[in-house]
Amino acid sequence: MSELQVARLEADTVHLLDQRRLPLELAWLTCADYRAVGEAIKVLAVRGAPAIGIAAAYGMVLAAEAAPGDPAGFIAALAEAAAHLEATRPTAVNLSWAARRMLAVARAAVATGVPAARAVLRQEALAIAAEDRQMNLDLGRYGQAVVPQGARILTHCNAGALATGGWGTALGVVRSAHQAGKAVEVYATETRPLLQGARLTVWELMQDAIPVTLVTDGMAAQLMAQGKVDMVLVGADRIAANGDTANKIGTYGLAVLARAHGLPFYTVAPVSTIDLSAASGAGIVIEERDPEEVTHLGGRRIAPEGARAYNPSFDVTPHRYLTGIITNAGVVYAPYQVNLRRIVEGR
Amino acid sequence: MSELQVARLEADTVHLLDQRRLPLELAWLTCADYRAVGEAIKVLAVRGAPAIGIAAAYGMVLAAEAAPGDPAGFIAALAEAAAHLEATRPTAVNLSWAARRMLAVARAAVATGVPAARAVLRQEALAIAAEDRQMNLDLGRYGQAVVPQGARILTHCNAGALATGGWGTALGVVRSAHQAGKAVEVYATETRPLLQGARLTVWELMQDAIPVTLVTDGMAAQLMAQGKVDMVLVGADRIAANGDTANKIGTYGLAVLARAHGLPFYTVAPVSTIDLSAASGAGIVIEERDPEEVTHLGGRRIAPEGARAYNPSFDVTPHRYLTGIITNAGVVYAPYQVNLRRIVEGR
Repeated sequence: MSELQVARLEADTVHLLDQRRLPLELAWLTCADYRAVGEAIKVLAVRGAPAIGIAAAYGMVLAAEAAPGDPAGFIAALAEAAAHLEATRPTAVNLSWAARRMLAVARAAVATGVPAARAVLRQEALAIAAEDRQMNLDLGRYGQAVVPQGARILTHCNAGALATGGWGTALGVVRSAHQAGKAVEVYATETRPLLQGARLTVWELMQDAIPVTLVTDGMAAQLMAQGKVDMVLVGADRIAANGDTANKIGTYGLAVLARAHGLPFYTVAPVSTIDLSAASGAGIVIEERDPEEVTHLGGRRIAPEGARAYNPSFDVTPHRYLTGIITNAGVVYAPYQVNLRRIVEGR
Repeated sequence: MSELQVARLEADTVHLLDQRRLPLELAWLTCADYRAVGEAIKVLAVRGAPAIGIAAAYGMVLAAEAAPGDPAGFIAALAEAAAHLEATRPTAVNLSWAARRMLAVARAAVATGVPAARAVLRQEALAIAAEDRQMNLDLGRYGQAVVPQGARILTHCNAGALATGGWGTALGVVRSAHQAGKAVEVYATETRPLLQGARLTVWELMQDAIPVTLVTDGMAAQLMAQGKVDMVLVGADRIAANGDTANKIGTYGLAVLARAHGLPFYTVAPVSTIDLSAASGAGIVIEERDPEEVTHLGGRRIAPEGARAYNPSFDVTPHRYLTGIITNAGVVYAPYQVNLRRIVEGR
């Protein structure tokens, strides 16, 4: 199974797989400072909530290497880097979570001197990546238990190894079910505007020889009506305290369609995606991106010159549409208000 | 308002607007025989159920010009042309309706001699185009009555002047409402795989200065949840006797979403789209097209080499999701089984 890591931390550089160029090329970006990492996050060279958290943590290591040698200057530089990285994308909780975790570690470690703090931060960043992969192996184990033998699974966007520290969330469950001999098959929606399904999910599953069929976003309803789908598995960028879930634009529509066809619909995400500070989906900021992502494709215009377009990157699926939330600490069911808090607090 | 005609009949050629090249170029194909017209229909240079009916009728005129001068040979050649044209696309009822209407006229007219029959067929083809435009003006008049002042209308694919003999069906209602001073606005879904929404609907509405915003297919649910849509208007390729409606892939999903958000959902089509010989949607053949339309975009591969894709061109919306069917003979409501038959039979 795929052991691809999309982010690698070297002595004074971070290497990021440039996912904009997949599946046509396997190309890597070399980032020499945290601003280059921030830029890579902003332009979606690295994407997927957990993966951008890991990239941000690695960016904080580069910031620590470049920061002044005095404790106050060191912390000030890291605080600036954390704020810069957090601002690159507003919706994913993992980004600010990782940047803040690194900053908190820096504040605690700087008492032992800046060189020691740099070493601790490097360890911490690698731990964030390793923990993420382990969380995905765990949620894969829990999640595969709800996948029937021979299930035909519809997924959206890419919630795979390419979006995480490895194994994947929604695709982690697919991998675990595949590994358990369940003979699963996947329908991948292409996920306009940026085609993460067509470019990344199909590629990732083909690497592991898991059967996958590509469809356009508008074909999902017809697949369900034809009885070709048994369940829907998607990732999440942020889960509010009541279970409302922000994920790639198009997810909410799939949830409504799954309900109309009586199909299970699971959100798959590590516990770190749960944001108890957002009471409901109304508290989640939805990123709007450049309308050119809609009017253009691969740099070429598809709409008339001067056409107006709207480009929200995420939507919010109200918790009532979820069958359950598959996490690394188990599958959470309604009432989410109670059960998400319980799982976050480790009870 | 737009008086664009997508098909023009000359002495011994048919000119078709090559819609594959819109909105970047306004280019015309010149067809010297019915096979060239068939090819243009097959490759979607001309598309939209009524427009391909008109193109087929014009193709039959070219077939009549080239057919042998003896009555038996003349009819045999026209029967062959009709069968050839009908086979180019299986779902749209207008195609076979137009080809068969022309063949029936040929059979009746040939008694007065082949030259006279040729003239009658030319008249008939032009009548089919003129009737279609008039039907659209009529359904626009009926349809605009159900459009509220200031309505924000979501539409899918292109059911406009480009898809018909002029004015359009779903977009004909939009035009009539606009002309009636209702200050309507349109959200156009891009309509993958072939982007008829992005390329054609946006272009058409911009020509008439009707406000239009482009979104990807996966954004429709979010627009509805945000309260940005007041109603959905779509075209139809075939309407079964019970009201089940075949239209561009993605339509059915929009109907389910409209229902979930309490929004009116109207199918807009001339009476000629109603096919009483199909008892329900189960009796409608759904065309599957080349998977390359999904794995490629504008001739460029977007999915990995060897990726498997599924490409149904249409889906069927069960009649229970329709608020009504806007036709040139009035707006039809449930029970469709009774009311569609009544309207087809002119009662």
